[in-house]
Amino acid sequence: MEVDQTARLLITCPDRPGIVAAVSNFFYNHGANITALDQHSTDPEGGTFFMRLEFQTPHIDTSCSVLERTFADAVGERYSMDWRMSYGANRKKMAIMVSKYDHALLELLWRASRGELAADVTMVISNHPDLAGAVESFDVEYHHVPVTPKSKADAEAEVIKLLDGKADLVVLARYMQILSADFVAQYPYQIINIHHSFLPAFVGANPYRQAYDKGVKLIGATAHYVTSELDMGPIIEQDVIRVSHRQSIRHLMELGRDIERNILARAVKWHLEDRVIVYGNKTVVFG
Amino acid sequence: MEVDQTARLLITCPDRPGIVAAVSNFFYNHGANITALDQHSTDPEGGTFFMRLEFQTPHIDTSCSVLERTFADAVGERYSMDWRMSYGANRKKMAIMVSKYDHALLELLWRASRGELAADVTMVISNHPDLAGAVESFDVEYHHVPVTPKSKADAEAEVIKLLDGKADLVVLARYMQILSADFVAQYPYQIINIHHSFLPAFVGANPYRQAYDKGVKLIGATAHYVTSELDMGPIIEQDVIRVSHRQSIRHLMELGRDIERNILARAVKWHLEDRVIVYGNKTVVFG
Amino acid sequence: MEVDQTARLLITCPDRPGIVAAVSNFFYNHGANITALDQHSTDPEGGTFFMRLEFQTPHIDTSCSVLERTFADAVGERYSMDWRMSYGANRKKMAIMVSKYDHALLELLWRASRGELAADVTMVISNHPDLAGAVESFDVEYHHVPVTPKSKADAEAEVIKLLDGKADLVVLARYMQILSADFVAQYPYQIINIHHSFLPAFVGANPYRQAYDKGVKLIGATAHYVTSELDMGPIIEQDVIRVSHRQSIRHLMELGRDIERNILARAVKWHLEDRVIVYGNKTVVFG
Amino acid sequence: MEVDQTARLLITCPDRPGIVAAVSNFFYNHGANITALDQHSTDPEGGTFFMRLEFQTPHIDTSCSVLERTFADAVGERYSMDWRMSYGANRKKMAIMVSKYDHALLELLWRASRGELAADVTMVISNHPDLAGAVESFDVEYHHVPVTPKSKADAEAEVIKLLDGKADLVVLARYMQILSADFVAQYPYQIINIHHSFLPAFVGANPYRQAYDKGVKLIGATAHYVTSELDMGPIIEQDVIRVSHRQSIRHLMELGRDIERNILARAVKWHLEDRVIVYGNKTVVFG
Repeated sequence: MEVDQTARLLITCPDRPGIVAAVSNFFYNHGANITALDQHSTDPEGGTFFMRLEFQTPHIDTSCSVLERTFADAVGERYSMDWRMSYGANRKKMAIMVSKYDHALLELLWRASRGELAADVTMVISNHPDLAGAVESFDVEYHHVPVTPKSKADAEAEVIKLLDGKADLVVLARYMQILSADFVAQYPYQIINIHHSFLPAFVGANPYRQAYDKGVKLIGATAHYVTSELDMGPIIEQDVIRVSHRQSIRHLMELGRDIERNILARAVKWHLEDRVIVYGNKTVVFG
Repeated sequence: MEVDQTARLLITCPDRPGIVAAVSNFFYNHGANITALDQHSTDPEGGTFFMRLEFQTPHIDTSCSVLERTFADAVGERYSMDWRMSYGANRKKMAIMVSKYDHALLELLWRASRGELAADVTMVISNHPDLAGAVESFDVEYHHVPVTPKSKADAEAEVIKLLDGKADLVVLARYMQILSADFVAQYPYQIINIHHSFLPAFVGANPYRQAYDKGVKLIGATAHYVTSELDMGPIIEQDVIRVSHRQSIRHLMELGRDIERNILARAVKWHLEDRVIVYGNKTVVFG
Repeated sequence: MEVDQTARLLITCPDRPGIVAAVSNFFYNHGANITALDQHSTDPEGGTFFMRLEFQTPHIDTSCSVLERTFADAVGERYSMDWRMSYGANRKKMAIMVSKYDHALLELLWRASRGELAADVTMVISNHPDLAGAVESFDVEYHHVPVTPKSKADAEAEVIKLLDGKADLVVLARYMQILSADFVAQYPYQIINIHHSFLPAFVGANPYRQAYDKGVKLIGATAHYVTSELDMGPIIEQDVIRVSHRQSIRHLMELGRDIERNILARAVKWHLEDRVIVYGNKTVVFG
Repeated sequence: MEVDQTARLLITCPDRPGIVAAVSNFFYNHGANITALDQHSTDPEGGTFFMRLEFQTPHIDTSCSVLERTFADAVGERYSMDWRMSYGANRKKMAIMVSKYDHALLELLWRASRGELAADVTMVISNHPDLAGAVESFDVEYHHVPVTPKSKADAEAEVIKLLDGKADLVVLARYMQILSADFVAQYPYQIINIHHSFLPAFVGANPYRQAYDKGVKLIGATAHYVTSELDMGPIIEQDVIRVSHRQSIRHLMELGRDIERNILARAVKWHLEDRVIVYGNKTVVFG
């Protein structure tokens, strides 16, 4: 695989005239060809401005670190920007946590193996041993870290040690344990969970049973960033599938699996391509 | 328009062997050709059985009232059935209640005028005068019945008088007043409301604002039967549309209008074709 | 309604570094606040570049005509741009042509009347008298221009005279006559047609019958610009709806109507908001 | 896994009164509880009638072979039925043919291993060796049967020998060789292919390129039975996904993969559950 020479810049700042000109001038003057640019403003008068910019690094006239420092001085400060650059050449590291259901996990491993996800999968961590074989056939490390009510704190400590330096993103691919606020705080907006309902409907346990009991005509799933409040973090992606009176709860779960794995894969892909900006408890997702 | 010779039978009963044979024999023996048959059982052992049957009346060997009486004796009682027959020749009467938004109302009037809905629209009742002109261009009566907190009981009494004998179905096409439990009790599972969210998410007021604040990636609407508990009646139909960070609340409302009118039209159509059976707080909808 | 102070710029040009900077500088320097910017390149090396820019006119330092001349000199020529500006204050004029089916026509009239379409509907022209009443209830002129094989040329001449100066866009809302190449040439990429199939499947007559005979599981519709080659112009928008063995041709037509009117409305809306750029026989549609 | 005691009956016959009664009486009299019944008629007068019936075998009063013989005599002949029964206890055997793309193959293997498909996968046959490892990790036989223009007849002979007695269904999961008419004739309506376009659009080679060149706004895939005419057999299932000017051909292929594997999995599932009846060049699919 050849080196990816694309770099990306994400910006959040107060909206005011001149931002696009300032940013595009900066990159043009440094020889960085802009190949994609997307922007959004919550309100042209007094709103918040978001921008995603993709540029090519081969012809830039300096090193990345100097480019970043210069950008900070020349543009970032002037417009009170919250910004970050990332480089395709520094592939992100992704760890996956899972319990017993394999569908979301396998979908991610398969997509990663065919180059659809801009990350290296560094490990899979599970509180059960069941999926070790499936994971190892993808040549990925599998760590079994059992969790009991009593061992929970120790188990988290072990997970944190395993992840150390090896996870820019942690994906909960149907991991059935609730992470502590401390754990979550170490990976701010770097943990993505798939919830098996169309949030905010059916928060909590057994969403398919809740959906069945309510008699809804569509079931869904939601990929969101994990925050300290259960099932309440910023939503990245959602989708639904049509159901009817004919489906039992077991059938709903079967249909739901297909939605879950597709949505999680989309959310992870977008995160890895730096398409998601969190603001407040919501997300801007640049397509 | 020629007379519609289709009749329909809806059945709910405890499931046990022999029901299909008993029903189909009955109709065959009376010369009624079965042209559609749909069934559902919640569980073959001890479950509840639902059936929808369409049959043609031209060759039946007796009058409809005798057919019904004979069916009650020969089949209905034996299987402890809750059942009802309806006849295409007796077109249903539909009244529509609306406030100021015209989209759901016009959708129904258009479809009715094109012959897509198996009912005659007998009247439109509104607590505002605004839509009188639009309705009258369809040659449909428009009744303006203002509602104030003080006049609410009187207004309902007036509506009930207007509806008397002229409404087999009452459709709330964005009628912004809450109907009293007494009113609802007079039309059990004969009042259909469109709620502008994907229930059970965003119950209550301003669902589009709630959806905006939550940052959901799909917005929806729900057509349901009205019961005495607000927004909690059996769901008939739901659908969603994709949104993003780009939409303001006003845009969500605009997009939502298209969903609302389509879903309401589908739910009304299905109800009028006797495709919906309520059980518990859910519905069986035969496609 | 207050004056719309938004203006839009559409650009097509060979891709090369510096375009975004040049354009955004130009607008910044003239006091025009950029409120939306979308771009696309078919290939960063030697591709074609497309841009749509929305800007606000209140604070620009000159008249629109001077702004355009200056842009041509300072930017357009330098980058070999094909470009055009349009102003919300100059509302577009839209004429609709129709035969007997009313669904697509009414959808457009209704959306126009509630301010969803950025145009004034100047007239409806039909080769049949049937829809005069419906149209006039929207306070829109109705012209009945009958067409027979013999009178076709005269009829077109009459239509052209009616449209003269009153149509920036002509929408064929199920107009069942084929326009001559001469007619089409007078409105290059300014005539939008709705074809009742998912093109390129089922070109030509009776697409619903063709779909029925083929047994497809989805039927669709396509909004496209009209060119001299029948049903072959650049596609603006398409959508589909699920069908099954249960639908007769008549049912397919009924379901298809809903798709047709929605798609046509979307395509017309996008065209009017200057979101569509034609290149080759395809379109770029900025969302 | 416990023995599946469900049996299914599929019927095609000329429509006339009394069929449902005759069939349901027959099963009731033999102690077979009907747990699902679906029917369709192309026309109540002189049309063709289709029925799918699921019944439970535990309480039937005879062996399956006697039941079938009795049904033939008592019902099948009288109504000129084309019919067949199948039994959950006799699991179907499924062989998969593939070339180099793994997505459709893996989707089927995953679903089979989770128990979602009512069949045993007996083997995978490929004209390339590439996917042997992936297949063997599912404990399924992999046969590499290379095909060259010269060896084509011999290769087919080898495949036929491999399949002998081991394939009630052959699935072409992106098998890039065209099967001979002789081969196809041995498996009438027992070979399912996934075509990577929304047929009948883009028949033949490189459908994604054709879709790209045409500028369609949706791309699709089609699962169909293989007949001697290429890409023209009865369609079982289709679906589409939205695309835009932003996708290159490579992206269309990537998006298309997701559609292909889902549609093929659905079509295979329905076939295995005896939900599909072919008539003419179309299918009835009971949901």
